Amino acid sequence: MPDAADFAGPDVGYDVPARPGMREADIETPCLVLDLDALERNILKMGDYARQHAIRHRAHGKMHKSVDVAKLQIELGGAVGVCCQKVSEAEVFVRGGVGDVLVSNEVRGFAKIDRLARLPRFGAKISVCVDDLDTVSELSEAAARHGTTLGCLVEIDCGAGRCGVATVDAALAIAQAIAAAPHLVFEGIQAYQGRLQHLATHAERAAQFAVALDLTRATVDVLTRNGLTVATISGGGTGSFELETQSGLYTELQCGSYAFMDADYGRVRDADGRRLDEQAWENALFILTAIMSHPTADRAICDAGLKVQSVDSGLPVVFGRDDVRYVNCSDEHGVIDDSHGRLKVGDRLRLVPGHCDPTCNIHDWYVGVRNGIVECLWPVSARGKCY
Amino acid sequence: MPDAADFAGPDVGYDVPARPGMREADIETPCLVLDLDALERNILKMGDYARQHAIRHRAHGKMHKSVDVAKLQIELGGAVGVCCQKVSEAEVFVRGGVGDVLVSNEVRGFAKIDRLARLPRFGAKISVCVDDLDTVSELSEAAARHGTTLGCLVEIDCGAGRCGVATVDAALAIAQAIAAAPHLVFEGIQAYQGRLQHLATHAERAAQFAVALDLTRATVDVLTRNGLTVATISGGGTGSFELETQSGLYTELQCGSYAFMDADYGRVRDADGRRLDEQAWENALFILTAIMSHPTADRAICDAGLKVQSVDSGLPVVFGRDDVRYVNCSDEHGVIDDSHGRLKVGDRLRLVPGHCDPTCNIHDWYVGVRNGIVECLWPVSARGKCY
Repeated sequence: MPDAADFAGPDVGYDVPARPGMREADIETPCLVLDLDALERNILKMGDYARQHAIRHRAHGKMHKSVDVAKLQIELGGAVGVCCQKVSEAEVFVRGGVGDVLVSNEVRGFAKIDRLARLPRFGAKISVCVDDLDTVSELSEAAARHGTTLGCLVEIDCGAGRCGVATVDAALAIAQAIAAAPHLVFEGIQAYQGRLQHLATHAERAAQFAVALDLTRATVDVLTRNGLTVATISGGGTGSFELETQSGLYTELQCGSYAFMDADYGRVRDADGRRLDEQAWENALFILTAIMSHPTADRAICDAGLKVQSVDSGLPVVFGRDDVRYVNCSDEHGVIDDSHGRLKVGDRLRLVPGHCDPTCNIHDWYVGVRNGIVECLWPVSARGKCY
Repeated sequence: MPDAADFAGPDVGYDVPARPGMREADIETPCLVLDLDALERNILKMGDYARQHAIRHRAHGKMHKSVDVAKLQIELGGAVGVCCQKVSEAEVFVRGGVGDVLVSNEVRGFAKIDRLARLPRFGAKISVCVDDLDTVSELSEAAARHGTTLGCLVEIDCGAGRCGVATVDAALAIAQAIAAAPHLVFEGIQAYQGRLQHLATHAERAAQFAVALDLTRATVDVLTRNGLTVATISGGGTGSFELETQSGLYTELQCGSYAFMDADYGRVRDADGRRLDEQAWENALFILTAIMSHPTADRAICDAGLKVQSVDSGLPVVFGRDDVRYVNCSDEHGVIDDSHGRLKVGDRLRLVPGHCDPTCNIHDWYVGVRNGIVECLWPVSARGKCY
């Protein structure tokens, strides 16, 4: 009987898809690959934008769920910290050394609130969104229990139809309660319009944003008139951040996808009608896949299916090639239209996933590649952290 | 500064969603919950069916990726072993003690084939599918290197348009090469028609199966006439297994989803027009979710979005309730139509996911529940094992 070490076998392909130093051609497929040059250029570009426009950028960690990427965004891109959607994600970022974390979402329930209120004890500034009066006392009591302070933003629904208060009166009541509550600091407003981010034309996005801006401004005005200091107005995504910036009202951007990009954002057009993946942001995230079967002349099968990506926003796009096309998907297979007969078994393709966030959340590792060599292997640190 | 143990905090919600002994009402959301009674009834029912019809059931482990569920299927349901789609899954099942594993998929590339050929050394019978002549010598050489034997099934494309040889001649050539190759045993045919499984009516599935059966029978006939023993004819899924059984040709069923069920299979109708989730199989798998915001009278927001499920086959269905409806989905949120005003923050819902396989693959844990109490916490052992 072989021993345990022999059983475990080579780590590549078993627990990890690659090792630093390996050639890209030897990476086990399918897996997520990061083009480190493209990633760094995207991060630098957003950092330059924020600096030039004197607006803060709080990078959205829900997209990549990676401490390593977050640190690059902070150290290289000048981001002030991260935002994320779940307490369990915030725990990972704080443990990883990120010092300023906003949970840009509501946190409900005793256990989750208790864990959130404990986090500042580990040296991080922690903020959270609130859209319900009941939560205020729960947050305050939890922070008192742990001897901590929590920053609070009132979330308003500025058109996404998700969480967030629906009226200015409700926002005022919650903001006043926060300001009055021990161990809480009223910081401002969360006004993220998620629904407009992926609208195809700039005109559509601008029209929706105008509505969002009116609602946000009205809220800020009422709060200010009532003696509250609205220091932070946070929102904006990869599809809209120039609008938030130009508004002069927002103080903080929450862009996430710009760093990796995906096929759905790639199709979005800027004010000049150019695709976002042509002029604005480079594709840095890929699903590396190999052809594993070529049963007919025109049909190749690759090893990347539903278990390595989310297709909620459409199928992936084959990067850098217009001679082959990803046309269908099942659990472990992708069907590639190879009508021109360009592929053979073993060939590799880089796929741009339809939607980066839920795709990254399936994987355990990012394989960072530069000049055809694996430079790093980064864990998807908050993978599966949905609590 | 708090110490590390304090930092880690309570495990529930951080690394695990529950602990055995906990009440269902205290489970952290969102997470996967298994109704153990329903699961056991489904497993027993499939076991009874296979025994009564004298056909072997090889449970598809790609669906649940769980050693614990596989063992229940073998010990309680009489399954002969498991099939799975990836070498890295097979490694997990073998390490977990499953003694008979078929990789019901092609395995290509030196590293993956080498790992596959090593597996029989750990006491398991290992088989694999082949649809390309080149693979035969690669498998044979790898098995020779490790001093092992691999069973081989020739996969034919019987209508799914995925992997599998397209002609009987190709099947014969590969089968003969396998039979002649040292360290390989020709076992038979893999003939799974994945595309027909989810067709809504029995008549549609029967029509597609008739085509698949003709192709499979023709292949078996030619192989047999050429002196090959086709001992195994494997295929069938939750939407079709009665057809494979009735054919008299198939020797082995590969059903997987029957154990958990999902919303998409639930809509499939049997020969009498009844939904599969009403008469045939019980929903045993749920996404447990909590209402986290109720910003308007008719709109509730739950904490289960794209990061805890795959919506490739449609949105989830709220189990056991027709007064509320899951109508929209973003990364971390689900929008619930609460037009009748039945929900409040903190209320919990059981969602039946649209598609069980890629949903299970996102999660780290199954929370097994019986009579309202958490009985077990099972790892999704092969989660993310896509190599």
